[in-house]
Amino acid sequence: MPKVILEPDGEVIKVSPGETLMEAMINAGKAVEAPCGGLGTCGKCKVRVIHGEAVPDEVELRLLSSDDLSAGMRLACRLRPKQNMSVHYEDTLSLATHKLFAGDSRIDLAFRPSVSKVAVVIGPPSLEKQWSATERLRYALAGHAEVKPLRIDVLRCLNGLLDQRSPQEITVVLRGDSVITVERGNSVDANYAVAVDIGTTTIASYLLDVYRQRLIDTASSSNPQATYGADLISRIEYASDDLKLQALKDMLLNTVNGLISELARRHNIETTNIYEVALVGNTCMSHIFWGLDVRALATAPYTAVTSDEVCADAVSAGIGSINPAADVFTLPNVAGFVGADTVGVILATGIEEADELKLIVDIGTNGEMVLGNRERMIACSAAAGPAFEGAHISRGMRAVPGAIDGVRIENERVVCSVIGETEAVGFCGSGLIDAVALFRRCGLIDESGYIISGEEALERSRAVKGIRLAEEDGASSILFGDSADGRVKITQRDIREVQLAKAAIRAGAILLLKYFGCEEKDISLLLLAGAFGNYINKSSALEIGLLPAIDAKRIISAGNAAGVGAVKALASLDDRYRARRLAQKVEYIELSLNADFQREFVASMLF
Amino acid sequence: MPKVILEPDGEVIKVSPGETLMEAMINAGKAVEAPCGGLGTCGKCKVRVIHGEAVPDEVELRLLSSDDLSAGMRLACRLRPKQNMSVHYEDTLSLATHKLFAGDSRIDLAFRPSVSKVAVVIGPPSLEKQWSATERLRYALAGHAEVKPLRIDVLRCLNGLLDQRSPQEITVVLRGDSVITVERGNSVDANYAVAVDIGTTTIASYLLDVYRQRLIDTASSSNPQATYGADLISRIEYASDDLKLQALKDMLLNTVNGLISELARRHNIETTNIYEVALVGNTCMSHIFWGLDVRALATAPYTAVTSDEVCADAVSAGIGSINPAADVFTLPNVAGFVGADTVGVILATGIEEADELKLIVDIGTNGEMVLGNRERMIACSAAAGPAFEGAHISRGMRAVPGAIDGVRIENERVVCSVIGETEAVGFCGSGLIDAVALFRRCGLIDESGYIISGEEALERSRAVKGIRLAEEDGASSILFGDSADGRVKITQRDIREVQLAKAAIRAGAILLLKYFGCEEKDISLLLLAGAFGNYINKSSALEIGLLPAIDAKRIISAGNAAGVGAVKALASLDDRYRARRLAQKVEYIELSLNADFQREFVASMLF
Repeated sequence: MPKVILEPDGEVIKVSPGETLMEAMINAGKAVEAPCGGLGTCGKCKVRVIHGEAVPDEVELRLLSSDDLSAGMRLACRLRPKQNMSVHYEDTLSLATHKLFAGDSRIDLAFRPSVSKVAVVIGPPSLEKQWSATERLRYALAGHAEVKPLRIDVLRCLNGLLDQRSPQEITVVLRGDSVITVERGNSVDANYAVAVDIGTTTIASYLLDVYRQRLIDTASSSNPQATYGADLISRIEYASDDLKLQALKDMLLNTVNGLISELARRHNIETTNIYEVALVGNTCMSHIFWGLDVRALATAPYTAVTSDEVCADAVSAGIGSINPAADVFTLPNVAGFVGADTVGVILATGIEEADELKLIVDIGTNGEMVLGNRERMIACSAAAGPAFEGAHISRGMRAVPGAIDGVRIENERVVCSVIGETEAVGFCGSGLIDAVALFRRCGLIDESGYIISGEEALERSRAVKGIRLAEEDGASSILFGDSADGRVKITQRDIREVQLAKAAIRAGAILLLKYFGCEEKDISLLLLAGAFGNYINKSSALEIGLLPAIDAKRIISAGNAAGVGAVKALASLDDRYRARRLAQKVEYIELSLNADFQREFVASMLF
Repeated sequence: MPKVILEPDGEVIKVSPGETLMEAMINAGKAVEAPCGGLGTCGKCKVRVIHGEAVPDEVELRLLSSDDLSAGMRLACRLRPKQNMSVHYEDTLSLATHKLFAGDSRIDLAFRPSVSKVAVVIGPPSLEKQWSATERLRYALAGHAEVKPLRIDVLRCLNGLLDQRSPQEITVVLRGDSVITVERGNSVDANYAVAVDIGTTTIASYLLDVYRQRLIDTASSSNPQATYGADLISRIEYASDDLKLQALKDMLLNTVNGLISELARRHNIETTNIYEVALVGNTCMSHIFWGLDVRALATAPYTAVTSDEVCADAVSAGIGSINPAADVFTLPNVAGFVGADTVGVILATGIEEADELKLIVDIGTNGEMVLGNRERMIACSAAAGPAFEGAHISRGMRAVPGAIDGVRIENERVVCSVIGETEAVGFCGSGLIDAVALFRRCGLIDESGYIISGEEALERSRAVKGIRLAEEDGASSILFGDSADGRVKITQRDIREVQLAKAAIRAGAILLLKYFGCEEKDISLLLLAGAFGNYINKSSALEIGLLPAIDAKRIISAGNAAGVGAVKALASLDDRYRARRLAQKVEYIELSLNADFQREFVASMLF
């Protein structure tokens, strides 16, 4: 079994035959950044080969730059070590340096956790000092904390731990000045917390080692509620009665509990040593997580049960995979459709501390946007519809194997990149945007979005190999590939859906700028939040007018920023309190009956 | 069916044929003071007949003074109205006047309850004011309270109560600045609390109307744990493993829940409108109530798990008969054998505010004593043993029908009063004390407790009719009654048990005085706490040297003082906080290895 030395730490891991380096690293408990989950599409899991044979394969040749290749870079998900080797691997998730990767900026992560552990030796009582177990504990803790009256569950296990005859070492788990539990022996080095980003599509979890001040690992899973609709509105409609709301909630809880157990299993951690869980998600997801009624979110005036941070003990929250005395909390919301995930993004990207103007855009069924700086922050939610999630598009699909996620021209021929390198089945959001941008660039659709027809159309389509115009039942469409089966195509109607979606987002951004008294050019940084933001081709998005017209260099992916926000709130009470203030500070503009928005929306339909 | 008008309120109640006035009053929800439970022994349920025929029976002739009788006083438990009548009845339990009967002193009861209710009208949201349900609630409450973040269970029921379209009146239940629950409509007048005194023998409960600031009713039941031993030590021995501890706890919880349900049923109160329960009991009972390990209480150095006030929500406490968001708390303890019941007695009798010196004596298996005034309070617990509870006495029994509870001489003949006026079976504590005092007075036992023998003995016993000396298996005893069956007797061994018990209590009192730097004559008031204290014949207790040698007039029964303490802590946070300070302030002296105590104990054995 070949061994791989991971530099700079010098740790040695074993690789089973046929296993990729990424798989071996994950099994060994190392954090590997791989937003695509090891599919070989994101190109993020770079390692530098120091010693040993490693010829890049075609995927690596495509995803790595020539500089990377000549420096010996390889992708951990493609590298299958056959003999001993050593690689340099940058642990981007390590918090040892108090840095956490989010988008392309590195964020300071301060540690002031709410849960701390103190080991103390408790002496036995005597007839001279007939102190109760509580008094002896309080005495032993005197140098550390002035504790509140003990909770009944702590009292119940306290006497079982203490001995009437000899001194005993126990570990006291404190949240502020409250003892939440006591443990036998010295367990101060076992103090963990988990952050969870409940996305509509994907649920991502982050395991934090509070004692060593490190993010250890991440695990993610698809949101099982997708069975009841890809978009939020379908799920809210499904959750129309208490039983069904409970069913959706149980699905979420099962997945969250499963992810936490998986993280603990991987690192051989006792789940009872997990003392805190922080969650972010849109308002609908947060509400379902807590079992709160979501119906008022779907109809005007779109109100939540609460916008506050919600906190409960693990048992009340239904998180059975951690210590029962742990706290589980969701970050606060700004409004019905500007949720805790957006607050997490603000927290992670620190726009409220910026001098320059920043715009956060999170594209989903709703395009949530926040514009601001240290002076002021304004948010809105534009109803983009689910086009970019593949819904309402004739050949639309999610970003799964078979989906075209990118379209470009090489040697006058349309080349599609397909997830999983299988045969193309349809388009996911980023592919759709690329395709529409390409159509516009090649003059196949006009400014108003019409697929052109007649002689000129034929001529232009002939100039680009790999696509052709077609007419079916009086409706135009553009077919992809050399086959004539028309399985992969984009119809006139699809283009209209893209126009509606991109106009909503652009108009929302324009409204925010207007209320702020600024123009698009004043935006110094545009952060694309959410999974979609990681994959979107910025040039294409600018070309179709989805995003404000600024230099592409000033547009970056904020990556897992919502999750990073949850990690920050978990790592430090200061950040948790900051999230509360932020949610209060952000101004919200309701667009649904806003005449200005309607005007901008119509104007933004044009390409 | 005869009607009875209860003056001064003028309320009319109906009495079924054969029913006593007390039974009819209790059925009508009136509070009747009857420590004996209607057995016709305590003489407390006095009413004054204004109009109607009412000839006193023999029990009333015995228990009521000639002044009472000539004033028309009768006992509600003996009066069976056969025709319409009117009586004047003093509602001693009424708190309308903020007074509560405890012993022979009237105590001021201040009201500053922890739970309050506020009715508010919550407006619907609009697109202009897209306030969450929480924000609308907080706005409506603005004039009343700045509330903490809402608990998840409150959030879960909040949206179900509120309407998206029209204003809704709801009632918010507040504990300090925490919303504990919300209710439909206006229910501010339904705010109840229950105090419980968990005695080793009897569990007494008190229903408090927090809105009207009145004590409404009381209900009591025997402690079902008695199956596992009349005394505490037997129960601690039984609770040697967790399952058995749980069994004892469940018995307590069943009884407490049953009493609360019974009080609510009587007064047609929704149990969800009971928002607080305060309990007192000795340390063992408090610990069993909370499911805390009691084993350390039974062996040196006799320590508790905690001496603090313990507080938990109703669900954690296992009190399912009230609102699940209610708080349940036990008053703090002073030490292992000076429990929350003693703290309740201190609270009720206010010795910590007294200028003069007061001594509280609670006689049970242990004689808990507190001596003090506003300057200082000292407590101890003397191991009296269960003799006064009828245990270890050849014909000993509890104060139940058939027990001799009093012995006196009338016309040179020994007369025994028997509970339930049935044939005498044995002696309860008060009867035993009376008998031993009588033996001493008649010279049948000498100073050291020996039953005299020889000619003189025969002569003296002949002078008192109704008892005679006997010799069985070489041991002397004194038989009661004219029959020769010797069923009711007191043996030499029994007298030794009484000596051990009385010596422990007297020596404890002497020790307290010594540590305080005082003498017996400095005691201005001696309060006999607990049920036993209600029945004991003070002269007899003084005669046998059980109590410090002070004027009998300065000895009073503190009655239900422990329960009154719990009621006070429930009625006012000031009293609850006072209890916490009191428990800290009282100094505790451990007697078990105290040489001074041993010396005083031996000296106190003599009569």
